[in-house]
Amino acid sequence: MCLNAVSRNGHRKPNRKNLLSYSLVEALLRPTAVALYGASNDPKKNTGRPQRFLKAHGYPGRVVPINPNRETVQGEKAYAKAVDAPPGIEQALIMVPKLAVLNAVEDCAAAGVKVATIYSDGFAETGVEGLALQEEIVAIAKASGMRIAGPNSMGSIDLNTPMTLSINAILEMENLPAGNLGVISQSGSMLGALMSRGAARGIGFSSLLSIGNEADLGIPELIEVLVEDRNTEIILLFLEGVRDAEALGKASRYAYDAGKPVIAYKLGRSEVGRELAVSHSGAIAGHDAAIDAFLQNHGILRVEMMETLLELPALVAKSKPSGGNRVAVITTTGGGAAMVVDKLGAAGLELVPASERLLEVLAKNDLNLGEGRLIDLTMAGTREGLYKTALEVLFDDENVDAVVAVVGSSGQFHPQLAVAPIIDAQKTGKPLATFIAPDAPHSLERLRSAGIAAFHTPEACADGVRALLDWKPPLKIPETRKLPTAVKKKLTVNNGPNLDEVAGREILKALGISTTQPVILSGPEAHIPDDLNYPLAVKVISPDLHHKTEAGGVALGIGNKIELHKAMKEVCYSAANYMPEASLLGIMVEPMIDAQAEVLLGFRRDVEAGPIVVLGMGGILAELYKDFSVRLAPINKDIASQMIDEVKGLSLIKGFRNLPKGDCDALANAIASLSSLALDPIVAEAEINPLMVRRDGEGVIAVDALVRLNTR
Amino acid sequence: MCLNAVSRNGHRKPNRKNLLSYSLVEALLRPTAVALYGASNDPKKNTGRPQRFLKAHGYPGRVVPINPNRETVQGEKAYAKAVDAPPGIEQALIMVPKLAVLNAVEDCAAAGVKVATIYSDGFAETGVEGLALQEEIVAIAKASGMRIAGPNSMGSIDLNTPMTLSINAILEMENLPAGNLGVISQSGSMLGALMSRGAARGIGFSSLLSIGNEADLGIPELIEVLVEDRNTEIILLFLEGVRDAEALGKASRYAYDAGKPVIAYKLGRSEVGRELAVSHSGAIAGHDAAIDAFLQNHGILRVEMMETLLELPALVAKSKPSGGNRVAVITTTGGGAAMVVDKLGAAGLELVPASERLLEVLAKNDLNLGEGRLIDLTMAGTREGLYKTALEVLFDDENVDAVVAVVGSSGQFHPQLAVAPIIDAQKTGKPLATFIAPDAPHSLERLRSAGIAAFHTPEACADGVRALLDWKPPLKIPETRKLPTAVKKKLTVNNGPNLDEVAGREILKALGISTTQPVILSGPEAHIPDDLNYPLAVKVISPDLHHKTEAGGVALGIGNKIELHKAMKEVCYSAANYMPEASLLGIMVEPMIDAQAEVLLGFRRDVEAGPIVVLGMGGILAELYKDFSVRLAPINKDIASQMIDEVKGLSLIKGFRNLPKGDCDALANAIASLSSLALDPIVAEAEINPLMVRRDGEGVIAVDALVRLNTR
Repeated sequence: MCLNAVSRNGHRKPNRKNLLSYSLVEALLRPTAVALYGASNDPKKNTGRPQRFLKAHGYPGRVVPINPNRETVQGEKAYAKAVDAPPGIEQALIMVPKLAVLNAVEDCAAAGVKVATIYSDGFAETGVEGLALQEEIVAIAKASGMRIAGPNSMGSIDLNTPMTLSINAILEMENLPAGNLGVISQSGSMLGALMSRGAARGIGFSSLLSIGNEADLGIPELIEVLVEDRNTEIILLFLEGVRDAEALGKASRYAYDAGKPVIAYKLGRSEVGRELAVSHSGAIAGHDAAIDAFLQNHGILRVEMMETLLELPALVAKSKPSGGNRVAVITTTGGGAAMVVDKLGAAGLELVPASERLLEVLAKNDLNLGEGRLIDLTMAGTREGLYKTALEVLFDDENVDAVVAVVGSSGQFHPQLAVAPIIDAQKTGKPLATFIAPDAPHSLERLRSAGIAAFHTPEACADGVRALLDWKPPLKIPETRKLPTAVKKKLTVNNGPNLDEVAGREILKALGISTTQPVILSGPEAHIPDDLNYPLAVKVISPDLHHKTEAGGVALGIGNKIELHKAMKEVCYSAANYMPEASLLGIMVEPMIDAQAEVLLGFRRDVEAGPIVVLGMGGILAELYKDFSVRLAPINKDIASQMIDEVKGLSLIKGFRNLPKGDCDALANAIASLSSLALDPIVAEAEINPLMVRRDGEGVIAVDALVRLNTR
Repeated sequence: MCLNAVSRNGHRKPNRKNLLSYSLVEALLRPTAVALYGASNDPKKNTGRPQRFLKAHGYPGRVVPINPNRETVQGEKAYAKAVDAPPGIEQALIMVPKLAVLNAVEDCAAAGVKVATIYSDGFAETGVEGLALQEEIVAIAKASGMRIAGPNSMGSIDLNTPMTLSINAILEMENLPAGNLGVISQSGSMLGALMSRGAARGIGFSSLLSIGNEADLGIPELIEVLVEDRNTEIILLFLEGVRDAEALGKASRYAYDAGKPVIAYKLGRSEVGRELAVSHSGAIAGHDAAIDAFLQNHGILRVEMMETLLELPALVAKSKPSGGNRVAVITTTGGGAAMVVDKLGAAGLELVPASERLLEVLAKNDLNLGEGRLIDLTMAGTREGLYKTALEVLFDDENVDAVVAVVGSSGQFHPQLAVAPIIDAQKTGKPLATFIAPDAPHSLERLRSAGIAAFHTPEACADGVRALLDWKPPLKIPETRKLPTAVKKKLTVNNGPNLDEVAGREILKALGISTTQPVILSGPEAHIPDDLNYPLAVKVISPDLHHKTEAGGVALGIGNKIELHKAMKEVCYSAANYMPEASLLGIMVEPMIDAQAEVLLGFRRDVEAGPIVVLGMGGILAELYKDFSVRLAPINKDIASQMIDEVKGLSLIKGFRNLPKGDCDALANAIASLSSLALDPIVAEAEINPLMVRRDGEGVIAVDALVRLNTR
C-alpha cells in the first residue's frame, strides 16, 4: 500500500491511490458505527468495558452489541449477528472465545465491516495450531477486502473522535488527554502506561493502537494510517521486535517526508532483553546494533528511557536533524545543571562553553562567568532580562546545535518568574530543552503550554537531546544496482550453503577485493615447492570449519621448509580432531602479510533489520570489546568511510600516536564492495577475518574468505 | 574526631570521647538558640528569609537577630552583637557582606557560639585573597573551639526539630517532609531539588546540610554527625569532588558499622562533567574509575540517576551487601517489566528465570509460564493469592539475590488490589523493589507506607537494584605493613623526581617483580657485544622520556648485528628529535620476550581517591578501550586476582578460545607488590608498560619501568 503525502496541517492531496487507505484511516480511528462481539451486560467485566468506555467518553457513533443470548446489552439493542444489524458498521471488536472468532470474522466480512479488531487470544502466540487458525481468519478477511487488527490486540483508541474501542483499563480515566501524539505498541499494556504518564504531564494523544499478533495490519501500515491522520503530528513506537524491516523502513520514510517524526523505544538493548523480546510476543528480535543501524537509516529517533518517549516530542516537533553534536547548557543553578552536563558528556556530546560574544554581552551587564563548560549565570543571572538575553545569544550562535536551559528552585515557587525568560526569548528554530531541578509542576505546565520541551529528570533530558542530535534524515537508498556479472557468475556456479575458502576468494576477487595468492597443497604429505616466500601462513581448506583458528587449523610465521612440513601435519591433525566430520580439501600456504591493521569485514542478513555490513577490529578485539560499526547494506563509499571512523581501534591507522597511516581509501572501497552482496538474495553471509589493511597507498588484502549461500 | 558507635535505634553508648561531637550534633541540628547576622526586617529578602522560615515551621528555640541598625527585626528584639544578647546561642547563621564576616565570627566566638554557619560568599572560591580571609576566619574559630560551616553554605536544616536555619527557597513549602534521610550536599541548590522531589513522593528527611567551601566542617565530619543523629537512618551525599579521601573513607566505614548506609550521587562520570566539577565549587575532581574504586572500598553505594538517590533508601534500609547479582523479575504485565529486565541486563546483572519449584507451584494452579527470563504470570496471575504465593517462592529461593515486582494498569485504578499481594507476602529479608508502569500515585503511596521500595521509572528501578547488588562491605584495611627494607633503600638512594629505567628496574626487583637483564650500551656508536640473543628489543635510556614508543625511542625484533647498529642510531636520533632537551643516558638492549599477554600495571596517587593500583591491557588497548581495573592501594593477592578477572582483554590468558593460559598467579603477586608502593609517600607513581605475562608457571617479566618520586 502506498499512501500519498499529506502536509503538516493535515490537508490531504487528492489522490486516487489513497482511497482504500483513507477508508482504513476512517474505519480505524473514526468509525461511524462499531460492533462489539461478545459484549457483556456487566459493565465491569472485561468484555463489558468497551461499551461502557465508548459511552462514558462520548463516542459520537453508533454502538452495536453482538450477543445472541440477549435482547439488549447495557441498554443497547443487541443482535445475534452483524448481518442482522442495520448496515454501516465500520469496525468490530471481537472478544469471543478463540473457537468462536472464525464465525465472528465471517459475519463481519458478510456485513461489510472494514476492520475487525480481535481481542481474543490463543492464536499464533500459542503454537502451530493457533497459527493455523489465525491464518484461516486472515484468509477470510483478505477474500472480502476486510482488514484484521490483532489477534491479541487491546483495541483501537482515538482520543480526538473520541473513540475508545478497547478493553484497556486506562480508559477508566475520567478525562482522556486528547492531543497530537500517535502511539503504536506491540505491548497492549504499555498504551495504558504511556497514556497515564502523559496525562499526568498534560501531554495529549491522538490515537493509541495495540497491534497484538500483527496477523494482517502491522506496524508499517499503522504508521501510514497515523501519517494520514490529520490529528497526529508525532508517532511513537513501543517495539519488541521488527517483523518486516523493509515495510517499516518505507513507512518511516513516508512519515519523515510528511514531517511527522517517528520516535521508538525498542526493547533488546541487552542480551537478556533480547531473549525476552522473543518470548514476550513471538517476535524474533535481532542484534541491537543492527536495529540501531536500521532505525537511523530510516530516520527514526531511538530513546533509551521510557519517559523520554513522552518528553521528547515537544523537542522534536520543531526540529530537524541538525547533523551537529554541540550543546550549550545554561543555568542559574549549578548542581542541577551539572547533572545534565555529566550525562550529555557521557553520551558523547560536545559541551560548548560561553562564546566570546556571550562573555562580552554578560560583561557589559557586570556578570563575569567562571571557568568551565557550564554557562552558570549564578544568582546574578536572575537580574532583569539577563537570562533572556543570554539565551538569545545562544540561539544565534552557529557553533551551538542545541540549547539546554536548567531552572533551579525558582521553578518551584515562582513559576512565572522562572520560566518567563525561556518562554519570552526570541526563538530561531534551534532546539531548546529545559530541565527543572525541583519538583515544579506549574513551571512544567507553563513550558508545555508554550510548546517548549520540558524534561522531568536530568537523565531523560540528556537522553532526549542525545536522541535528537543523533537523528539523521533517512539515508538515500542506493540506486538499485546489480552485482557485477562476474560476481553473479561465481555465485551461480557454486552450490551452497558453505563455500570453501578457495571459492570464497574467487567471489572476493570478482568484487574487486584483493586476496593473497596462496599455493594449494593437497594434504599433510604433499610435495613442498622450493620457491615459497617464507615466513608463511598455513591453513587447512574446509567448507565445514568456520573458525579455523579455534580448530587449530592455522599456523603462522612458518620460517622454513622443515617448520612447514611440521605445520602441515599439525593443522590437519588439529582440524580433524576438532571436527572429525569436516571435509579437509587441502592446505593453503601463503606469505605472511605485513599490515598496519587487521580488520573483520562481514555481511549478513539480520533476522530483524535485514542485510547489514559490519566492520570491526580483526582477531579477538571485535568480540572482546564490541568495537565495530554497522550499517544496512548495501552502502556507498562515503558511508563506508563513516564506518571506519566509528571503529575505535582503527584510530591505529589514522595517525594515532604517530603510527603510520593505513589505506583507508582502499578499505572503504572493500566495505562498499562487500556490502553489495546484499543485492543478491542468494548470499546469506560473507566474512573476511582478517582483511589486512596496509600502509596508505598499498591497499587491502583479504587473507581469509567465508561465504555462505542460501539454499536455492 | 572519632565518634562512638550508635545502634540502629539511636541509643548512644555512653562514651567520654563523644562529648564534643555530641555538642556538635546538638548545635548543628537542634540548637536551643540561633543568631542571625545581617537579618533583614523584610521577610522576603534572602537575608530576611531564615527568620521567617524558622517561625513559619515552628522552630522551638530562641531566635536572635543580630543587626546594629534596628531595635527589632521581624518583631524580635535585635542586638548589635551576640555578646550583647542573653547567652546560650548554639548556632549562628552569618549573612553579612564578606568584609564583615570576620567581625561576626569574632563576636560568635566571644559569645560562646558552637557552630558559625556562613552563608556569605567571596572566599576561597574566588581566589587567593578570598582564601586568605577564609583561613583567617577558620583560625579564629579554631582558637576558641568553635566550628565553621561554609562559607558559601546555604545553611542547616533539621526537619524533626524543626530547625530551618537556611535561606534555601525550598523552605517556602508549607509542609516540610520530616523523616529519616540525612542529606549532605556540595551543591546548596540540590538540597531544595531533593527535598521537593522527596516531598512529592512522601519521602521525608531528617537533616539537610549544605557544606559550601568546607573551610572547617567537611563531609566526613557531617557524616559522623548524621550517624550520631538519632533521626537519621540513611545518609545521602551529593558530591562534586572528594577533598579528604582518608577522612571520608573512615566516616563512611563508621556509618556502615553503625548500620546507616551511605548512598552517593557523584558528578564526574564524563570528562566534561569532571571539568565541570572542578569549575563548580573549587573541588578537584579526579578520575571516575578511581572514585568508583574508592566508594566501593569504603562501602558507599553509588547511583547513576538523580531520583535513585531518593528511591533507593527504602530498598537499602532493609538490606545488606549480598555479594550476588541474580535478579528475578515477576509481573502480570509484559511490556512494563520488559523495560526493567532490559536495563538490568544492560547493567550486567543476571536475570533468573522461574525455578522448577516455582513452575510446579504455578502448574498446580493451572498456570503454565512461557519461555524466557521474565516471570510473567499474565492476567492469570491476578487470580486470588497466586501472585503472593509466587513472590514467596522467590523470597525463599537461594538462587535469587533480589526480586523486582512490576505492576501494570491495575496499579492505577485498583491500588489496593494491585499492591496488596506485594505488601502481604511473607518477607524473608531478600531485597524487593517495585516498579509500577502507569502513573499510580496511590499505589506508590501504599508501597511507601509499607516500607517497600517503589521506583517511578524502569531506569531508576534498574539503577537502584544494580547499586544495591554492587554494594560491598568496606574492604578490610590491609594490615599496616612497611615496604621491604630493600625497596626502602632503593627509594632512598635515588633522587627524584624521575628515575631512569635502570633505577626503576632496581626498585621492581626489590619488590620481587622479575625484569629482563638488559645489556646497556653507552650510545649509538658503542661496541656491540658478540654474545647477544637475537631477536632483540632496543630502547633509549632517559629519565625525561616517559613515552619512549611515541618518541621513536624503541625498536623491536632486531634480527642481527647490522640491524642493531642501524637501530641504535635511529632510536637515539628519533628521541633527540622528539625532545631535544631530554638527557639520553644510553641504550638498553635485551632479548624479545615471548608472552601470552602484555599488561600495563600502574600505581599512582589520584588527587581525589588517593593511592590506587591500575591493571590494564598493554600497548594501546587499555587506552583505546578503557579496559582496566582499579583498586585503592595497597591490596593483597586476592583483590589482585579480582582485578585480573575484571580486565576483559585478559580473558586471553584465562582459556579464551582454547588459547594457552597465562601465569595469573605470578601476575596477581606482581600487582599486590607494586600496590605496596602506596606505603611510602615518597613514591608519586610507578608504571610497568608492558609487563609480559608468560605461560602458566613461567611467571611475569617487566620489560619497562617508570618510577616518579615526590620531591622530599
